[in-house]
Amino acid sequence: MPDPKSKYWLPVRETMDPGIREQKILERVQEVMTYAYKKSVFYRDKWDEAGVHPEHISSLDDFERVPVVTKQELRAAQLRVEPFGDYLCVPEGEVHHIHGTSGTTGRPTVFAIGRDDWRTIAENQARILWAMGLRPGDMVFVAAIFGLYLGSWGAMLATERLRAKCFPFGAGAPGMTARAAQWLKTMKPQGFYSTPSYALHLAEVARDEGIDPHDFRLKTMFFSGEPGASIPAIRERIEASYGASVFDCGTMAEMTPFMSASGTSGSGPGMVLFQDMVYHEVCDPKSFSRVGWGERGTPVYTHLERTSQPMIRLASGDLTHWIQGPSPCGRTYPCFPDGVYGRIDDMFQVRGENIYPSEIDAVLNQLTGYGGEHRIIISREGAMDELLVQFEASENIYAEGATAVDSLRQRASEDLRRVLGVRSKTEVLDINTIPRTDHKAHRVVDDRELFRTLNSKLE
Amino acid sequence: MPDPKSKYWLPVRETMDPGIREQKILERVQEVMTYAYKKSVFYRDKWDEAGVHPEHISSLDDFERVPVVTKQELRAAQLRVEPFGDYLCVPEGEVHHIHGTSGTTGRPTVFAIGRDDWRTIAENQARILWAMGLRPGDMVFVAAIFGLYLGSWGAMLATERLRAKCFPFGAGAPGMTARAAQWLKTMKPQGFYSTPSYALHLAEVARDEGIDPHDFRLKTMFFSGEPGASIPAIRERIEASYGASVFDCGTMAEMTPFMSASGTSGSGPGMVLFQDMVYHEVCDPKSFSRVGWGERGTPVYTHLERTSQPMIRLASGDLTHWIQGPSPCGRTYPCFPDGVYGRIDDMFQVRGENIYPSEIDAVLNQLTGYGGEHRIIISREGAMDELLVQFEASENIYAEGATAVDSLRQRASEDLRRVLGVRSKTEVLDINTIPRTDHKAHRVVDDRELFRTLNSKLE
Repeated sequence: MPDPKSKYWLPVRETMDPGIREQKILERVQEVMTYAYKKSVFYRDKWDEAGVHPEHISSLDDFERVPVVTKQELRAAQLRVEPFGDYLCVPEGEVHHIHGTSGTTGRPTVFAIGRDDWRTIAENQARILWAMGLRPGDMVFVAAIFGLYLGSWGAMLATERLRAKCFPFGAGAPGMTARAAQWLKTMKPQGFYSTPSYALHLAEVARDEGIDPHDFRLKTMFFSGEPGASIPAIRERIEASYGASVFDCGTMAEMTPFMSASGTSGSGPGMVLFQDMVYHEVCDPKSFSRVGWGERGTPVYTHLERTSQPMIRLASGDLTHWIQGPSPCGRTYPCFPDGVYGRIDDMFQVRGENIYPSEIDAVLNQLTGYGGEHRIIISREGAMDELLVQFEASENIYAEGATAVDSLRQRASEDLRRVLGVRSKTEVLDINTIPRTDHKAHRVVDDRELFRTLNSKLE
Repeated sequence: MPDPKSKYWLPVRETMDPGIREQKILERVQEVMTYAYKKSVFYRDKWDEAGVHPEHISSLDDFERVPVVTKQELRAAQLRVEPFGDYLCVPEGEVHHIHGTSGTTGRPTVFAIGRDDWRTIAENQARILWAMGLRPGDMVFVAAIFGLYLGSWGAMLATERLRAKCFPFGAGAPGMTARAAQWLKTMKPQGFYSTPSYALHLAEVARDEGIDPHDFRLKTMFFSGEPGASIPAIRERIEASYGASVFDCGTMAEMTPFMSASGTSGSGPGMVLFQDMVYHEVCDPKSFSRVGWGERGTPVYTHLERTSQPMIRLASGDLTHWIQGPSPCGRTYPCFPDGVYGRIDDMFQVRGENIYPSEIDAVLNQLTGYGGEHRIIISREGAMDELLVQFEASENIYAEGATAVDSLRQRASEDLRRVLGVRSKTEVLDINTIPRTDHKAHRVVDDRELFRTLNSKLE
């Protein structure tokens, strides 16, 4: 445990010269590859086929030639060797915890986390909570479901290792949100973890219960599971609701310690990449070689300290851009200045323009009078792509009447057109029409039938 | 970790002469009382007022004079000294985990569990899983909500400490039960934890999904949270659904390690009382002195190894009877041969007879053609107590038609009359009328209005 006054958990590692760090990362990458080649049929076969061998990697540029791992390959490996796949690199008896993906269709992926890895995850993520300003003795309230989903467990492990008090409240069961508000008011924790969508929902429910979320007196709120905490308008909405500092974090469940990319106290919005935990690359989505600083690409992640199911160049399918360090917090790591703002396959084209759902989310959240939830419906009418954005207004707007509602709708249309570069249809729905979520939001609908029906009702 | 072939985790402690054990328990009780007297205003004030002092306790008979702690006192103490109460005996910085009661009305009680206690709980409960026949490397699926409720956390800690694989699946969110069935079929864990009600519900849902719960190949199923796993008919129904051994365990959340009373491999139904973890007394519910072997009373529990919020003579309000050891499993501990079968305040009187809901549960579960869920409605018609038992029939019975349904109803009436000693009204409801539970069942309704309405429809 570091000196309580230290800004950094590991001052040397966090502030070292980036060139020297890259040399250390290279050494670690070589070790991890040698280990995985020896222990796993999956990596041995994959690399042999690609003509890549751990001994050939003598620079991080060489490492770019290592073929990426896809989620589909992991699923196939688990069908081939049940249940953990032939990339489990420890004896089955060393498996400590089992979690998994929570998709409702198709075979989920099983995460087998070894006993040592469980401790490593705790150690690494405690370092991140420290960087966010949490300290031993603080209380951290975890308001996300405990089960398959790893986010909540990671937040808990981090809190425990920090010698803070963990209140693993959970989420997801009927009635829990109102009770969470009551407990937060009673316990007044310093820290809070959930998904960004859920934090906004919880604030609404609290106010419905007559509780001002400011009364929770939260200081540090950290989020993962979906983009949001790095989107300025959403970030500001959460900060305004709770009066707390907001930190974005998270890479992928497969990559846990997922907080390796995290906002820190002093970093400003976005995420600092703790490259000595997990090696983060931002790559061209076709060649999977790194893009330059400032450029957009897809993150590719490599575990430097996991032994059970180590991921070596896991393709995220996410979308971001990165910049060179140091971060304003003093760490010499590179950063995702706008967080991870979407998925490559979330992107859709409307009349030739690339559009990301997170951009629409951001526009609406900046709009005074926005009610907090929306839905995006994409379709094609004849040869033309059509984009419909439905959203709720705030109570004030409804109270002001039809003119105010329509004026809000028009402002949304104009703002969307300006930011997206294409015209969209907009509709203001009645209050509480769109279901709120206890977990991650699902806002994009691609349903021609639905679109046709709705379309006939609109101008 | 004991020798893998050993039947006992701690052979000496588990099989020692009960007289010698009692001497050790006395020494431990003296230490715990001295500690609590020194560290907590709550115990100091309470005992000073009662004229009891740790130094005066020179036998376990003396210990019976120590006034019991009630849940109401704990709540009052937490209102007085927020949030943990003046019975927190460690510095707040030592609090590791926060859990609590999950009642929806009134102020809940907060459990603050210290870092050392968290380890002690794991250690003690791993010993119990060992006694149930689980071993390092086995997989344990925990199908209860992770949050305020401590049962799931205790099962997880025990599994982790046993060096088994923990699959903390959780429960409570919509759609989780069907997914649990899918995961159980894929993962084939050896161990399983939930509430008894939920295990029965899960078996129904699995069958609806076309999955036979036998395909899970479970070996060891352990339960807490409500009576059931010691009620022969329910126990048999779970065993028949899954083809696994069923173990009952559990005392109270406040008393965690709650598995201190647990079935073991070889014990037969009921629970063995690991007196060296928690000192279990069965007492007269008025005087709180111990009742003799074979007699009914209410359990009173004392922590022997907890330091954060140690409970010293906590009155459970539950109901059981106890017998002298040794248990058929070879342990020299006393036992609750029928588990903990109700609460003192669950008992209701119908025309002068004492009736426990668990007795009705047992009668129905023994009935061929019972559909798995029921509801008990108690009321008073004029001067007469009335008891209405509504239940569902199995699909076969409904398929056979109205005569079969009525014949089932009559058999239920006769069996209930024989066991309870009073006449009750019975009604067979349509299938799936009574909601199933993801947690603990709530089957008793005391609603005169409802009763009147229903009554008019019955013979």
